[in-house]
Amino acid sequence: MAGPATLRDVARLAGVHPGTVSRALNPQTRGLVNERTARRVLEAAEELGYRPNPIARGLRTNRSNTIGVLVPDLMNPLFAAVVRGIEDGLREGGYTPLIANTDNDSDRERVAYEAMSARQVDGFIAATARRDHWLLAEQADPDAKVVLVNRRVDSDALPAVTGDDHEGIRLAVEHLAGLGHRRIAHLSGSQVLYTGWSRHRGFVDAMAGLGLELDPELVVFSGAFTEREGARCCGELLLRRRDFTAIVAGNDLLALGCYDALEQAGLRCPEDISVVGYNDMPFADRFTPPLTTVRVPHYELGATAAGLMLEQLRAADVPPRQLLLEPELVVRGSTAVPETSRSQHGVP
Amino acid sequence: MAGPATLRDVARLAGVHPGTVSRALNPQTRGLVNERTARRVLEAAEELGYRPNPIARGLRTNRSNTIGVLVPDLMNPLFAAVVRGIEDGLREGGYTPLIANTDNDSDRERVAYEAMSARQVDGFIAATARRDHWLLAEQADPDAKVVLVNRRVDSDALPAVTGDDHEGIRLAVEHLAGLGHRRIAHLSGSQVLYTGWSRHRGFVDAMAGLGLELDPELVVFSGAFTEREGARCCGELLLRRRDFTAIVAGNDLLALGCYDALEQAGLRCPEDISVVGYNDMPFADRFTPPLTTVRVPHYELGATAAGLMLEQLRAADVPPRQLLLEPELVVRGSTAVPETSRSQHGVP
Repeated sequence: MAGPATLRDVARLAGVHPGTVSRALNPQTRGLVNERTARRVLEAAEELGYRPNPIARGLRTNRSNTIGVLVPDLMNPLFAAVVRGIEDGLREGGYTPLIANTDNDSDRERVAYEAMSARQVDGFIAATARRDHWLLAEQADPDAKVVLVNRRVDSDALPAVTGDDHEGIRLAVEHLAGLGHRRIAHLSGSQVLYTGWSRHRGFVDAMAGLGLELDPELVVFSGAFTEREGARCCGELLLRRRDFTAIVAGNDLLALGCYDALEQAGLRCPEDISVVGYNDMPFADRFTPPLTTVRVPHYELGATAAGLMLEQLRAADVPPRQLLLEPELVVRGSTAVPETSRSQHGVP
Repeated sequence: MAGPATLRDVARLAGVHPGTVSRALNPQTRGLVNERTARRVLEAAEELGYRPNPIARGLRTNRSNTIGVLVPDLMNPLFAAVVRGIEDGLREGGYTPLIANTDNDSDRERVAYEAMSARQVDGFIAATARRDHWLLAEQADPDAKVVLVNRRVDSDALPAVTGDDHEGIRLAVEHLAGLGHRRIAHLSGSQVLYTGWSRHRGFVDAMAGLGLELDPELVVFSGAFTEREGARCCGELLLRRRDFTAIVAGNDLLALGCYDALEQAGLRCPEDISVVGYNDMPFADRFTPPLTTVRVPHYELGATAAGLMLEQLRAADVPPRQLLLEPELVVRGSTAVPETSRSQHGVP
């Protein structure tokens, strides 16, 4: 045969219409073709060594059926659950996610965004949480749809789905207050990140709502949501030598860091200090002690974000919706009645 | 101005050569341009609303500067470390990874592969471990480079980097034998996956090498590398009512499942049964008990794979290299001297 095989050559060999070949060879539309026919087309294409021209296909349909997913930290296993939800949700709509790790770094995020943009993704789901998000500031690609997970913008200009951090932190503080804790510390996430900021705000409101005094010396702001920062900040808290019996940590990794700092200081969790995390990340039930935490429905966050994206892709001018998913308190072994309450009878 | 702004319009406004505009607007090459000049170009482009045509750029250079990364299971946090290594390694070469989760499912993998292929990635790093890998069978895209992580092919036709599973399992068995264990069980990963297969082979060889009898009834093959499968298979092992004092699990998640099954059967780890995992996944030191395991240098696996990819991209006809990275035994709280040895003095 002269020159490379064409779509028509494949159609002729398989005995079908060229449109059928096109549908059968595109994994996104293969389901529209009778299974036996699809197999015949694939065999014919293989026999002829036919390769569709992907650029021509991109130009023709102007749809890539891919969505860029920007994730801040794949090392934090909770994002894997968000990604899984996004994948499952998008697949239902025939879209494939392409994922990039941004490391909460604006430069990396921009490079990933531009690389994906140049590869013509149809939209972006941003699970990154920087409050000064350049994506929002610049609306860099006017043709690409953008959906936010785990953060929202005050202007409500973009579709977003977040966990209700305000309610989640309230559940944590209420749980501790119910056990008898009064002097409660907060190890906050970075205020540059939406989740760090919103959980700190939730803590301030929850303490006030329960009539507990908020000692500013008992609030420490970490620079990142990591175990190392948790240990450093908990150590700083202990150095301040203020009385406290419990810590509400901005996330589970910070809580794990507290475990380390407490152990190093010869303090026991929960006997001396109760610790509450946030997220219920994978393996939180395996830690020593198993971590009391606030469960965020990460898979559902991802699946809902995918739904919002499909909604935007299917019709023009769908108003952007902001959805809030409910968290849930999970009580395990890292919280207990404070020693001071246990020995209360002996106190004057 | 008539029509959309062109590269030349931007060059004129910024007072630079069009080639400089091209370099300044491409994040991969921006570093080649003086910083102040780059800023002037970006401002001029913004003022004119200039948008480069990514398809034209792709056609012109025939390089997308993106690499597709296929990962089997982002929910397993060790793959995050592999991905981090890949990212850091590729970034040094000016490449951006686009990641897809395949869930160890051939169909998903194929869809992700085709989506990336159509987006013209320059190569693929496959961290997926199916032994019947269609990528290898079909060499689907003859222009794209392929590098394997965590698996290799017998033909040595593709560059690959793997941990030395054979040596790793030997370290685990030797550690147990040194503690006095003789009846050692193996909870193997799926034989469909390279790592499951190679670690089982390693177990057989290690037992023989140490002169220990391998009881076929003490080997269970799981269907997947998950906690649930670990619990199911360990339960099956216990039902067989054969004596054993230790389990070598095919990975850490299977080992965690053993914890559950042992607890349910009223057995203590390590007092009654020692358990060794494989990988040293994040948080393995946090488990109850902290897990004795074989550390695979996951970050280095990823970084090395990126290096092999850059090697392939930089020059034609570089022979494919297969590299093996050394594992390391990490002894923690899940292994101990077996009870039978401890009471050995009382045994005739």
